[in-house]
Amino acid sequence: MTTLHSMGLRYDRGAGRPATLPATLPATLPVTLQILDQTALPDQERWLDGADPATMIGHIQALRVRGAPMIGICAALALACAAQAGSPLPGLHEQARALRAARPTAVNLMGAMDRLLAAPSPAQLVAEAEALFAEEVARCAAMAEHGAALLEPGERVLTHCNTGGLATAGLGTAFGVIRRAHALGRVALLWVDETRPLLQGGRLTAWEAGRVGIPYRLITDSMAGALMARGQVDRVLVGADRIAANGDFANKIGTYGLAVLARFHGLPFHVVAPTTTVDPATPSGAAIPIEERDPAEVRGLVGRLRWAPADAPVANPAFDVTPAALVTSWILDTGVLSPADVAAGALMGDAR
Amino acid sequence: MTTLHSMGLRYDRGAGRPATLPATLPATLPVTLQILDQTALPDQERWLDGADPATMIGHIQALRVRGAPMIGICAALALACAAQAGSPLPGLHEQARALRAARPTAVNLMGAMDRLLAAPSPAQLVAEAEALFAEEVARCAAMAEHGAALLEPGERVLTHCNTGGLATAGLGTAFGVIRRAHALGRVALLWVDETRPLLQGGRLTAWEAGRVGIPYRLITDSMAGALMARGQVDRVLVGADRIAANGDFANKIGTYGLAVLARFHGLPFHVVAPTTTVDPATPSGAAIPIEERDPAEVRGLVGRLRWAPADAPVANPAFDVTPAALVTSWILDTGVLSPADVAAGALMGDAR
Repeated sequence: MTTLHSMGLRYDRGAGRPATLPATLPATLPVTLQILDQTALPDQERWLDGADPATMIGHIQALRVRGAPMIGICAALALACAAQAGSPLPGLHEQARALRAARPTAVNLMGAMDRLLAAPSPAQLVAEAEALFAEEVARCAAMAEHGAALLEPGERVLTHCNTGGLATAGLGTAFGVIRRAHALGRVALLWVDETRPLLQGGRLTAWEAGRVGIPYRLITDSMAGALMARGQVDRVLVGADRIAANGDFANKIGTYGLAVLARFHGLPFHVVAPTTTVDPATPSGAAIPIEERDPAEVRGLVGRLRWAPADAPVANPAFDVTPAALVTSWILDTGVLSPADVAAGALMGDAR
Repeated sequence: MTTLHSMGLRYDRGAGRPATLPATLPATLPVTLQILDQTALPDQERWLDGADPATMIGHIQALRVRGAPMIGICAALALACAAQAGSPLPGLHEQARALRAARPTAVNLMGAMDRLLAAPSPAQLVAEAEALFAEEVARCAAMAEHGAALLEPGERVLTHCNTGGLATAGLGTAFGVIRRAHALGRVALLWVDETRPLLQGGRLTAWEAGRVGIPYRLITDSMAGALMARGQVDRVLVGADRIAANGDFANKIGTYGLAVLARFHGLPFHVVAPTTTVDPATPSGAAIPIEERDPAEVRGLVGRLRWAPADAPVANPAFDVTPAALVTSWILDTGVLSPADVAAGALMGDAR
């Protein structure tokens, strides 16, 4: 029996009835895949079946699962479930194309589907999907270890967005470092900014920090500067959506402002990401396209409440680009890179 | 007949039925005072009667009127209504004490009540209250004129919180400068940040900008840095809650972060406030106490929706302090002060 469990994902393959299987599902199901519905957090921990690609596509599109690495893993394991259920290779290829189309901009999803489509048999596809999960967990653990070593005992760390066990299959990226450092006694307090407009900090990171026992305080995005000025922040740790060859990186909107504030106050600012997030084909941040999202997200909380005028003109860039010059170090699964390393081409990979 | 109308306030005293009087009010009412219910904005423009101190206290406490200058004027005019309705001086003094207790931290409210309590007769009290309104309008007009002269044609200005006709009886402070500069062709676009946690930008400034025809775009507080990095902001204008003798000032949380971002990007950053906001008895920003508000404000939008964990620990400083070193100039009703002026003691007033 293979059991792959993370904070937001439960996959069980093999004989017997998994303990996590709800009574409403048939006892004969050989593989189960469940995701924690992130739209129901923090008030409800609702696990939903996702052992079928069509169902998983619905979860991805409705943001019930989110986080680039998490989406790739979920899609891969859903396809593995279909393979276990007896779907032949041509049918699996059809389903992989449908999964890929669920979020066409997600690089991890593309990479996961490409890898599974290269499998010569359904059994090999299952093995590749499960390997993806294991590799992701290992990358998170490596980042956590490398990053935690940088902290001093009792630091007060500030983070942005959600980069933990809900966004990845493992400990997470920036949050994984924080979690490991907390276990080592190096995090006295985590400042969680709410991360408007989608509130991944307020809804998810706050829940996750509480869940794993990290002392935290939630703030609005506008409070980070004042806390730094008062000397209440020692370090900033963030994730990345894409890292360019020169060390510039794109991440959730608001990251760049935190980098400027950290620099002004002389605080270390680190980006934490797996090497799979480095894109040697992107020479600099200027080459990273920035998605402009639905104006309704800025007018309120989509689907829940609008507070701004219904016709308010809005700017809603989903990401911003932080230049390498503002980064203290790049914490990767392969190790920690300094500005000198990055200037020497350490992120250029095959393009070097 | 005396008619004092602003964007958020309507006061009419004298013979005849005021055109603004709803049909539900008796035609014989000699004085009317109405406030625009700011809690109903931006979706409804609901005018509420406030011609009685007890009613006005309810409006102030429920935040149906807000903005330090606006609260002082509303309280003063409500007391003038009571005087017109025949209340003797001792009764008016009792009501002034009750009005003062409605928001004990509001300096303008204290000042307004002190001035009215010094009036030797009810008729003199009415004259003082009406004078307060007129002086406030004149101060706003002077700030607007001084400030607008600093802008070049076609600028893209960023502002924070709500500092316009809903917060004062006149054009406003920072927003008044923007409104006047727009009339002179000097504002091509206004960036309105939403100003979490209370969303005065998203709920009120967006509405007010639309109402007076200033082209604007609403953003989250986290987007200001990215817009500056892209070269889409030319100048930042903010209001102030209190200005210390050395030029440091307290204002809505998030102001300080904008000041740091403006400095990093080489953008002018101005504070706009009436001289009544300058406190020569406060030597520096370090002496300004910062109010810590209800944690529920950060967990969601109070009274409407909670999205963070119900028990999330929160920091909620209502204000931050921006040091004088980050200010390009202080735009007052008496003129524009440079850093050299401030360093030479121009804000020290009687303490000089």
